[in-house]
Amino acid sequence: MKINGQHYRTIWLAQDGWRVVVIDQTRLPFRFETVALGSAEQAADAIRSMVVRGAPLIGATAAYGVALAMRADASGAALEAALALLGGTRPTAVNLRWALERMRRVLAALPAERRSEAAYAEAAAICDEDVALCRAIGEHGLPLIREIATRKPAGQPVNILTHCNAGWIATVDWGTALAPIYLAHDAGIPVHVWVDETRPRNQGAALTAYELGAHGVPHTVITDNAGGHLMQRGAVDMVIVGTDRTTANGDVANKIGTYLKALAAHDNGVPFYVALPSPTIDWSIRDGLAEIPIEERAAREVTHLSGLAEDGEVRPFRVVAPGSGAANPAFDVTPARLVTGPVTERGVCAASAAGLAHLFPDLANRATA
Amino acid sequence: MKINGQHYRTIWLAQDGWRVVVIDQTRLPFRFETVALGSAEQAADAIRSMVVRGAPLIGATAAYGVALAMRADASGAALEAALALLGGTRPTAVNLRWALERMRRVLAALPAERRSEAAYAEAAAICDEDVALCRAIGEHGLPLIREIATRKPAGQPVNILTHCNAGWIATVDWGTALAPIYLAHDAGIPVHVWVDETRPRNQGAALTAYELGAHGVPHTVITDNAGGHLMQRGAVDMVIVGTDRTTANGDVANKIGTYLKALAAHDNGVPFYVALPSPTIDWSIRDGLAEIPIEERAAREVTHLSGLAEDGEVRPFRVVAPGSGAANPAFDVTPARLVTGPVTERGVCAASAAGLAHLFPDLANRATA
Repeated sequence: MKINGQHYRTIWLAQDGWRVVVIDQTRLPFRFETVALGSAEQAADAIRSMVVRGAPLIGATAAYGVALAMRADASGAALEAALALLGGTRPTAVNLRWALERMRRVLAALPAERRSEAAYAEAAAICDEDVALCRAIGEHGLPLIREIATRKPAGQPVNILTHCNAGWIATVDWGTALAPIYLAHDAGIPVHVWVDETRPRNQGAALTAYELGAHGVPHTVITDNAGGHLMQRGAVDMVIVGTDRTTANGDVANKIGTYLKALAAHDNGVPFYVALPSPTIDWSIRDGLAEIPIEERAAREVTHLSGLAEDGEVRPFRVVAPGSGAANPAFDVTPARLVTGPVTERGVCAASAAGLAHLFPDLANRATA
Repeated sequence: MKINGQHYRTIWLAQDGWRVVVIDQTRLPFRFETVALGSAEQAADAIRSMVVRGAPLIGATAAYGVALAMRADASGAALEAALALLGGTRPTAVNLRWALERMRRVLAALPAERRSEAAYAEAAAICDEDVALCRAIGEHGLPLIREIATRKPAGQPVNILTHCNAGWIATVDWGTALAPIYLAHDAGIPVHVWVDETRPRNQGAALTAYELGAHGVPHTVITDNAGGHLMQRGAVDMVIVGTDRTTANGDVANKIGTYLKALAAHDNGVPFYVALPSPTIDWSIRDGLAEIPIEERAAREVTHLSGLAEDGEVRPFRVVAPGSGAANPAFDVTPARLVTGPVTERGVCAASAAGLAHLFPDLANRATA
């Protein structure tokens, strides 16, 4: 997608041909800065500190992190060390493990001298496949928006609520939850997006608002508290969110607070869609609440925020009463019963084991075999 | 309640005997400062700018605002002007209208020369009655906490989630939702409070955390997104919130986001109580969604936050992407079906027209007469 008229992906090779450049998402929306990663350690740091975030982009960055490790030392021990280092950065996102497993499968079978080149090629393939996959999700989600538009009075926008950032800067390009919105907007369907600010890290207020604004999509930022009220008042036509990990039966682990919006959508008859790239499906588990580990992040993300001060600098500031502690679970699990439908790269299905297995018999069968 | 060992109410007369002193709640939790109000205009400004907030304290401040107006000019025209000025400050809180109606009833019947003294006396009575009322709510809520404590393993605290600030600084003393918690804590029942930060104005992170901390009650601040997850994991034993206006059938208008917590409590079998002083009941309406006007506040409350900068100053910060707008509905309506029970100054009842009328036959009958 475009920033200031220039097309970007979120991750690319530097002009030197080997370092990996990413957009520093901790600086958005107030600064657009890029960072060149030169080692697996730097890639791991970028994931851990959320310079890069979003399940697909985390997977892509981890894959390139393995490539950077192989360039420095292509031994089997170095490969295992890099996989362990990168795999330990974020516990919830399944794309991370998926991408690292794929790198291991390709690289472990090769002699050491061929690993570096193969690792770069595989990471690039992961990126290209992600772009195609997101575009396909967009194309399958577009008819859902178009169908709502046909039922609305002429000129009235389709009001879509989203939580966190599942946009193009969470992926390599296009995004997941936002891909259908971009395609609808580009197709001339009037859309308006309610953007949950998404505390504690404000990915909605900072990133989703930023990228929608850069693309010209009408949107309004709201607090995470406001969505239920808006649904009660008929101001939300559909909800679409991303996912960090989905169970084989359609339970969805996504950014903390997603579950509350799913409850409100259910209570008000608003369709609740989950943009779901198949790599985020964990076919090995069927009970999201019991089986998905939920990352507990630092209390400081709750007690402090980063914002643009009046002097034009981006600074941290404290918002919680001094002396009070904070808890910070990063994800919650939305049970499949609250999901209207996963929107996958192969189409929309029922949020159930049967629905997902019908669309992905190859993957579902491999998991149960 | 106490701050630094000194007992305070939230509103009192200055040593000069006529100005009205309040704690500047926009400066908490980082600064403890008081403001002396010398006119109805200053009282209205204090309400509008949320120097004072919380439905009971708004009512008390408005009553003293009328007294300040009468001291300056006790004519009937001045009385009406003050009532209109103060009544227009916040559209949702019913205490405000209740207090002003009470002042009008007392003062309109008096000759002008007696109005100033009578207004001060009536405002003081409103304050004293609020203290007694909050204490009574605490005493009726305490057994609910004690009952949960008896079912928990010894030493494990009762985990109580609250939203916004319905503590003593939202009232004249004791608080509404926090009154049972203070009484339980003082009675030696181990309690732990999950404090929703309560965006956009962070009354939870700033005020509830502040006053619980000052009183020594264990608590943890969480984002507004986290409560559903905690309930799914069994980490919440009960929810108790305040209310700004309640319909005759038990629909509750409270701080935006309350409805989402009520949905989550219902979905997880967690009791959801509303601390409900009878002056917040609007006996004239029975459909909260259709009949309670919801205040839309400034977008800047969403786009900007006030926090403690690293230089020790409290400053505003922008957190939303530049160029993106925001919406800011201040309240939502929780339908009575999601409320386990209102906790009133006369006891706990069913959240229904029959339940409330049974506890308050005098008020309910007067309304329908």
